[in-house]
Amino acid sequence: MPLPAPNLYPPFHIVRLSHVELHVTDLARSRAFWVDTLGLQVTHEDDELITLRAMEERNHHCVILRKADQPSAGHLAFKVYAEEDLDKAHAWLSARGHAVEWVERPWQNRTLRTRDPQGVPLEFYATMERLAPIHQKYALYKGVKPLRIDHFNCFSTDVDASVAFYNDIGFRISEYTEDEESKRLWAAWMHRKGGVHDMAFTNGRGPRLHHVAFWVPTPLNIIDLLDLMSTTGYLANIERGPGRHGISNAFFLYIRDPDGHRVEIYCSDYLTIDPDHEPIRWDLKDPQRQTLWGAPAPKSWFEEGTAFADTEIGEPTLAAKPIVAP
Amino acid sequence: MPLPAPNLYPPFHIVRLSHVELHVTDLARSRAFWVDTLGLQVTHEDDELITLRAMEERNHHCVILRKADQPSAGHLAFKVYAEEDLDKAHAWLSARGHAVEWVERPWQNRTLRTRDPQGVPLEFYATMERLAPIHQKYALYKGVKPLRIDHFNCFSTDVDASVAFYNDIGFRISEYTEDEESKRLWAAWMHRKGGVHDMAFTNGRGPRLHHVAFWVPTPLNIIDLLDLMSTTGYLANIERGPGRHGISNAFFLYIRDPDGHRVEIYCSDYLTIDPDHEPIRWDLKDPQRQTLWGAPAPKSWFEEGTAFADTEIGEPTLAAKPIVAP
Amino acid sequence: MPLPAPNLYPPFHIVRLSHVELHVTDLARSRAFWVDTLGLQVTHEDDELITLRAMEERNHHCVILRKADQPSAGHLAFKVYAEEDLDKAHAWLSARGHAVEWVERPWQNRTLRTRDPQGVPLEFYATMERLAPIHQKYALYKGVKPLRIDHFNCFSTDVDASVAFYNDIGFRISEYTEDEESKRLWAAWMHRKGGVHDMAFTNGRGPRLHHVAFWVPTPLNIIDLLDLMSTTGYLANIERGPGRHGISNAFFLYIRDPDGHRVEIYCSDYLTIDPDHEPIRWDLKDPQRQTLWGAPAPKSWFEEGTAFADTEIGEPTLAAKPIVAP
Amino acid sequence: MPLPAPNLYPPFHIVRLSHVELHVTDLARSRAFWVDTLGLQVTHEDDELITLRAMEERNHHCVILRKADQPSAGHLAFKVYAEEDLDKAHAWLSARGHAVEWVERPWQNRTLRTRDPQGVPLEFYATMERLAPIHQKYALYKGVKPLRIDHFNCFSTDVDASVAFYNDIGFRISEYTEDEESKRLWAAWMHRKGGVHDMAFTNGRGPRLHHVAFWVPTPLNIIDLLDLMSTTGYLANIERGPGRHGISNAFFLYIRDPDGHRVEIYCSDYLTIDPDHEPIRWDLKDPQRQTLWGAPAPKSWFEEGTAFADTEIGEPTLAAKPIVAP
Repeated sequence: MPLPAPNLYPPFHIVRLSHVELHVTDLARSRAFWVDTLGLQVTHEDDELITLRAMEERNHHCVILRKADQPSAGHLAFKVYAEEDLDKAHAWLSARGHAVEWVERPWQNRTLRTRDPQGVPLEFYATMERLAPIHQKYALYKGVKPLRIDHFNCFSTDVDASVAFYNDIGFRISEYTEDEESKRLWAAWMHRKGGVHDMAFTNGRGPRLHHVAFWVPTPLNIIDLLDLMSTTGYLANIERGPGRHGISNAFFLYIRDPDGHRVEIYCSDYLTIDPDHEPIRWDLKDPQRQTLWGAPAPKSWFEEGTAFADTEIGEPTLAAKPIVAP
Repeated sequence: MPLPAPNLYPPFHIVRLSHVELHVTDLARSRAFWVDTLGLQVTHEDDELITLRAMEERNHHCVILRKADQPSAGHLAFKVYAEEDLDKAHAWLSARGHAVEWVERPWQNRTLRTRDPQGVPLEFYATMERLAPIHQKYALYKGVKPLRIDHFNCFSTDVDASVAFYNDIGFRISEYTEDEESKRLWAAWMHRKGGVHDMAFTNGRGPRLHHVAFWVPTPLNIIDLLDLMSTTGYLANIERGPGRHGISNAFFLYIRDPDGHRVEIYCSDYLTIDPDHEPIRWDLKDPQRQTLWGAPAPKSWFEEGTAFADTEIGEPTLAAKPIVAP
Repeated sequence: MPLPAPNLYPPFHIVRLSHVELHVTDLARSRAFWVDTLGLQVTHEDDELITLRAMEERNHHCVILRKADQPSAGHLAFKVYAEEDLDKAHAWLSARGHAVEWVERPWQNRTLRTRDPQGVPLEFYATMERLAPIHQKYALYKGVKPLRIDHFNCFSTDVDASVAFYNDIGFRISEYTEDEESKRLWAAWMHRKGGVHDMAFTNGRGPRLHHVAFWVPTPLNIIDLLDLMSTTGYLANIERGPGRHGISNAFFLYIRDPDGHRVEIYCSDYLTIDPDHEPIRWDLKDPQRQTLWGAPAPKSWFEEGTAFADTEIGEPTLAAKPIVAP
Repeated sequence: MPLPAPNLYPPFHIVRLSHVELHVTDLARSRAFWVDTLGLQVTHEDDELITLRAMEERNHHCVILRKADQPSAGHLAFKVYAEEDLDKAHAWLSARGHAVEWVERPWQNRTLRTRDPQGVPLEFYATMERLAPIHQKYALYKGVKPLRIDHFNCFSTDVDASVAFYNDIGFRISEYTEDEESKRLWAAWMHRKGGVHDMAFTNGRGPRLHHVAFWVPTPLNIIDLLDLMSTTGYLANIERGPGRHGISNAFFLYIRDPDGHRVEIYCSDYLTIDPDHEPIRWDLKDPQRQTLWGAPAPKSWFEEGTAFADTEIGEPTLAAKPIVAP
């Protein structure tokens, strides 16, 4: 199946990924992980939720930790360019049969909620409360010194279908993995903001959130986090890495929060802003696509993910391949 | 004078800065600096010119070194989104009395040449020959490991006027320095691609190119370059740094090529892609705007720059202030 | 078994480990690895051997690569304080029944050859030809930027016996692993030069050389080497890491040369020069002793090593334990 | 004047520099600097003094901050190898007319106090209370992540005389600056522990302490400290750097504590442990000896220093040269 042609004039203008709502079972325990260990900054907290931002962000939050009985992901949020893009989105999505609703979200102006073809709950908004810059308040930096939210990665039961939808709404493919035999997509990395991705999909039981990623200054910050986690009771929360991905060229680390939500710490991708930027193709049989170097990913990394709240999980349409160990 | 409101729907779509043509007097000597020392990759060379790209770039070049009798800058080039944006640019610029002409440039599709209000020669194109990725050919990395061209910085005789023009064509202000008394702009940083700047202006004799900047992975690459230059005969080419700018928060180094063209090596700015991203204001009297920490800039850094070819240089309309040493 | 008391006034004064002779089967292939990839500097080469030094060393060499039919290690060499220490060593070793002989080695003054109790061939000398400093010739730095040889690590069939011998000749224990049940030593790290080790022993089939280690400036140099090796045909030569050892606190990487000789790249240990420096005890059952964080070591790392030339290999006296995976 | 021949068998065995007592006028203010900003660990505090250690040290302290009316340095302390070295030192110093006395120091066994020929108060001890390791308690690391005290640097009125004394007691010269005309020493770096120095001297009004230095893991830690100090009210305490010294090849930063005591933060010197290690000679007229690259040192750096308590300051015997700016 050939890649869809990039949609250079999409029906509405998405700027970038914005934030994720994660349901967690113990706010204090989550705070110890996300704030005291990772180093995200608390911008609000009460008995129900904690909101967090990274060091260079001025949006009110990039993560909402919401108290719940079961871990899950509430929704993935994206910022659109202007209020009118919400109306355009409402019209375009309705016309194609996507359920849409206007929802109220604190700190945000009006918010449009829908689901992608696999059922991922998406929310779009144009305006969120803005906070004063803190990127030069160096006394606040701690943990891994997270600078900004970077991307979401989801399991999809049909990566071709997911890519078709996001391509329609203006996401561009930066890299992708193709199954040589079936010529179907095994995985794809798609962006709006000019890096390797705002959103990525991998074939698997879905929809599920594989991880949310944060950008950090240098690989040494990731090494600092490893030193910290391995000596403060979080050794078992280190799942994979450090290593370098072939895809995206990122230096990476994957860790799990106390509820099992996976977080990627990430640096070193590249600028993809050119409209004629050519996607890089990887063969599913090339082990360096996953791991340019580094230990093989553990089984949990391939299989486990966070369910979305009130969302049914299905089996992938593309039969699972034996994992190719690097 | 209040900042102009950002122009969220500009008359034509500029993607990013693209490349600079620098006139140099000795190609071999320039090659030793730009290729063997900085680590840019040669993509073409003949008796008249050398073209260079940085490690993550797929455009044919980000720098053209052209043999000439006198050092100067030929033009600053910007990539637009689509061919039709060139026509829109032609119409919009003509209507406002800017001289425009279609010029032939090797490796590029049709190219529109004009000048900004201060006389800076600008060239716009949509399509340049693309090359295969080399960002994972790690055996090629050397010198400072330059990843991509990041921005231009020019002296302007009237920063308010420069900002008005670039604001009209969609550049957004990320940071600016205001003269407290006159309420006029002393300097401004403006971007298209979502970082702190594609283009910046400082009050001074102009138009002149102050520097072209390259993005590198970490501050350690800058330290490596300092070690290399200070032991291979380039000590006198190190002009300022390392240090951190208050404005942009960049870790920086300024060096001069054999013809005196100034190059900034740069890392650590931040994402500015949100359309409601608020510009940061700095007071001209705050020494930390220039130098959050680091030695004061030398006089040459404030005064010297590269003339543009065939372009008259004038005096600034805003009287020079005594340099505020940090 | 209690640790032996440190011998603060040893019978002769060893300054530090000096160099290793490795037998390799293809000098050109070895040169591509040790020189072009690792970045060691050639100080001599002919048809029979290549000698190498690291960037801050002034001794003529720290590695001798000698052409041979089979890979093996010729000997481990140590520098003593003064010529008279060789005579003291000769007397002390002879008195205890160690075979000793004076041998001729190019670039060295007289050299005393012996074997340790497990049969490891050792050579002692006081004076080797010295070369001009190159540590500030930054144009020569490449690969992993190796600064100096750091230590040897050997499999021993009887770590208690190995430790007793090296303790007698003034090596001090910095860290050790004890088998909780038998109270016998599983592994020990011993130093002369004031870091964590010049020489280490692990229980196993022996004597065999487990690895020779080189010190590099920062973890980023190790990441650079990984990027380089994984894209220049050396992916399969990366055996373990990067990670941090609990023991020694080193940030490490293990790689294999074309003949299978194992090399550790290493930074971050600590000063141990105080005569009252207390050894750190680790329990064999603590997985963080091996790997504070990082992927588990592969089977090859536990089992494979380089035989010493003309040296019989025996089984360990302490029964092998199941490997404790972290 | 030729350098003195190294004294390979000194009259008593000094292991390394140990600690400095600094008199400070406001303990709380000093604590904010040394503990909260630099990141040294408090090992004792009361109304009179605070003791500090760096992250890899097990000695009770490397700095004593003692409340006083005037800033000064109380003494420089060195650790000797064994108790009997104190007796040897007592005998040797007495025989040469140095005033010696046994003094009581908390946390130490018996302590010998004397003065060097210029009047620097020195204290020698063999045994200080030892603390449990904290180098793997990564949650404690902060500020510049200081690993260990590295060296003292003093102004001397007669560097030739200072060098003669320290050479007699076993310090070895690693690098030195010679005045080409008079053939006298302008400065010298001398070590016991196998790095570039435990003690250095520069010609000037003396004796005065120029600085005490701490070793940190990488240049990025120094950049972190600069970011922190420049945004927490310590901008004026940054005196010089970052840069690289030609001498010692160190990446350095000089800062001043609230009482003006100068601290160097330092990484990247090299191993000097070989007894035949050749000193590197620098010409006083070579500006790269001071600054391989980086801004010129300010006047304060050349002129200011900490007086020793109860110690007269004299003029240098070698006439001051005009400062050679790099």
